[in-house]
Amino acid sequence: MRRVAVAGVGMTKFGPSEKSQVEMFAEAAMEAINGSNIKPRDIQALFMGNVLGDFTEGQMNIAPMCASELGFSPGTPASKMEGACASASVAIRDAFMWVASGYYDVVLVGGTERCTVMGTPLATRTFAMASDSRYEGFSGITFPGVFAMVAHLYAKKYGIPLAKLKERMALVAVKNHKNGTMNPLAQFQKEITVEKVLSGFVVADPLQLLDCCPFSDGAAAMVLASEEMVKKMTDKPVYILGAAQGSSGPLYRQKDITRIMAREASAAQAYRMAGLTPADIDVCELHDCFTIAEIVASEGLGFFEPGKGSEAIERGETAIGGRIAINPSGGLKAKGHPIGATGAAQGYEIVKQLRGECGGRQVEGAKTGITDTLGGDLATIVNIIYGI
Amino acid sequence: MRRVAVAGVGMTKFGPSEKSQVEMFAEAAMEAINGSNIKPRDIQALFMGNVLGDFTEGQMNIAPMCASELGFSPGTPASKMEGACASASVAIRDAFMWVASGYYDVVLVGGTERCTVMGTPLATRTFAMASDSRYEGFSGITFPGVFAMVAHLYAKKYGIPLAKLKERMALVAVKNHKNGTMNPLAQFQKEITVEKVLSGFVVADPLQLLDCCPFSDGAAAMVLASEEMVKKMTDKPVYILGAAQGSSGPLYRQKDITRIMAREASAAQAYRMAGLTPADIDVCELHDCFTIAEIVASEGLGFFEPGKGSEAIERGETAIGGRIAINPSGGLKAKGHPIGATGAAQGYEIVKQLRGECGGRQVEGAKTGITDTLGGDLATIVNIIYGI
Repeated sequence: MRRVAVAGVGMTKFGPSEKSQVEMFAEAAMEAINGSNIKPRDIQALFMGNVLGDFTEGQMNIAPMCASELGFSPGTPASKMEGACASASVAIRDAFMWVASGYYDVVLVGGTERCTVMGTPLATRTFAMASDSRYEGFSGITFPGVFAMVAHLYAKKYGIPLAKLKERMALVAVKNHKNGTMNPLAQFQKEITVEKVLSGFVVADPLQLLDCCPFSDGAAAMVLASEEMVKKMTDKPVYILGAAQGSSGPLYRQKDITRIMAREASAAQAYRMAGLTPADIDVCELHDCFTIAEIVASEGLGFFEPGKGSEAIERGETAIGGRIAINPSGGLKAKGHPIGATGAAQGYEIVKQLRGECGGRQVEGAKTGITDTLGGDLATIVNIIYGI
Repeated sequence: MRRVAVAGVGMTKFGPSEKSQVEMFAEAAMEAINGSNIKPRDIQALFMGNVLGDFTEGQMNIAPMCASELGFSPGTPASKMEGACASASVAIRDAFMWVASGYYDVVLVGGTERCTVMGTPLATRTFAMASDSRYEGFSGITFPGVFAMVAHLYAKKYGIPLAKLKERMALVAVKNHKNGTMNPLAQFQKEITVEKVLSGFVVADPLQLLDCCPFSDGAAAMVLASEEMVKKMTDKPVYILGAAQGSSGPLYRQKDITRIMAREASAAQAYRMAGLTPADIDVCELHDCFTIAEIVASEGLGFFEPGKGSEAIERGETAIGGRIAINPSGGLKAKGHPIGATGAAQGYEIVKQLRGECGGRQVEGAKTGITDTLGGDLATIVNIIYGI
């Protein structure tokens, strides 16, 4: 297995867009290709995530459409992965293997999604399709409902008064919005306060409006290359040190939804592959679809003991400059969450951080980073570890 | 790169089913797992195709649901590929690489789809989403329309009177229905005549009802293993000798829709990888979504010169016992076409043929076989070459 590196990265501004998914992807992809000092014809294969293109634009089989938009030859395979909100990360792990194996030297990977055209009711219904449809989805469970349950169970299990947990959850939103103000590509560019979070309308008790990430449009892309090739493409290569994926299936198979089995399995694999421990990681982009999701993910990734994640927020340990900077990009919460693109946008941020190109939100001296992407209600987790 | 083999295979009966997509997949998968003399816990990763699970059952992110149904551990990655009707073949090629690279020793691959629950109007609308949605889909183009154009252009280009071409197209349907009567898993189990095809109602001129494959439900699966492992699993391993994929994008990028650029690129790659030529192939399962599609595919795969495929049908060269047996399973036309499962069902048939387990439809002495799967209106092609 060869070492695999990221050469160039690209990303659109997140938020409502008038562009089609193919156009957004082409924009992000051309930035990644240009940043790799290559031409589109140098790309040997495309792997990408997309989830709801059929519902939003009537576009299935979007990968060859994107390949065509970029002018790739008919001999260039273009594959789409769908793993709900983890789709782009599934694609990154897969693309990694095609280069690591020695089969390809240079591939394009990423994701694109347009959620805002659906409106909230249809978006909510279609997102809920990532739940088990036989026994759970039709009962009315939606993702805010799942994470509301996680919050209640977390408070109960660890003996944290719900009001205290809600304040700490609010601090996650405050931190990520603050980070977002320093990210010109973030959907939200304004700071918020704990008071504002706690006075928002209730989405699914105890989650209030600002505990929830928005619906977003956007795309992100990366060029992956073999170690030999990347040296000709950039003087700032970022290596993929670990790539792992886990799957838990329906909620009814979970023993304890405050600890996601797929994440613990996936993170352990990724750290083992990279030869690193959580203490070695400088920066993390994780799946904060809801504020409580960031807290449980920070524990699942091994940064804090189970039950200790919410205290860590309060102590500022996850802020930029803290013990482990979490979601310096603003996260799903403030940067936005175009679901099929999210994993690639997380990778974009880590690569930019490790290159020292993040301006006001730069995590000083960052040399290693991890992404964590969740698909469905705890069903799919992908973790990628990057390093320089 | 290591050699990769198929250990066990499984397939449900195709046709309308009361089972869910997850249940059908589990049925096919358990047959493949049992046939490999292993337990579900021995599977290290799952790769599968599914296309319309969200429309038909409200089920996205189906791969971890299938992994859960089969009892796989949370550390077992489960990934879904969507490449329209080629989805399962995209998954097979991908799974192949994960074993060839040395990363996994034993993986499960396949596909599942339930089309009949939608009814023809919704099925037609959703299938059409695999066309380019920006410039083509909304104009009203559907797949029967695309292949009707292919037929007209083919007749014109090669100077074949349309009535003569229609007769030869009808012979494709007659052959595949005859083959289907010898396949207990085929959706249609009755022979038809040229007269019956030519008296069917017109779907999209010149295509009549029996020129078109049906909507189907079904699933198929295969266990792939490294050469070292497969020897412990079965005494009838079938090797994957070549695996290639091409992509053409929207119709407007095609120069000549009677010759699909993605297929010519993909087939050339697959033959090169296998070190074989079309003349070396004994049996072929190709994408006969319409009768004319079989004719152009038989040429694109190099069995006949462009423009000569329809004469070959007339001479019986593609029948079982002919020069190159095409679609001995009955093909999409008679076996059925549960879109996300089709590529795996083609692989199932080739493996069964190479093992000599096909009874009345056995291609005597078959040692090599190729599958050809088309996704979208000419957008994605995957070719897999198998051998013993």
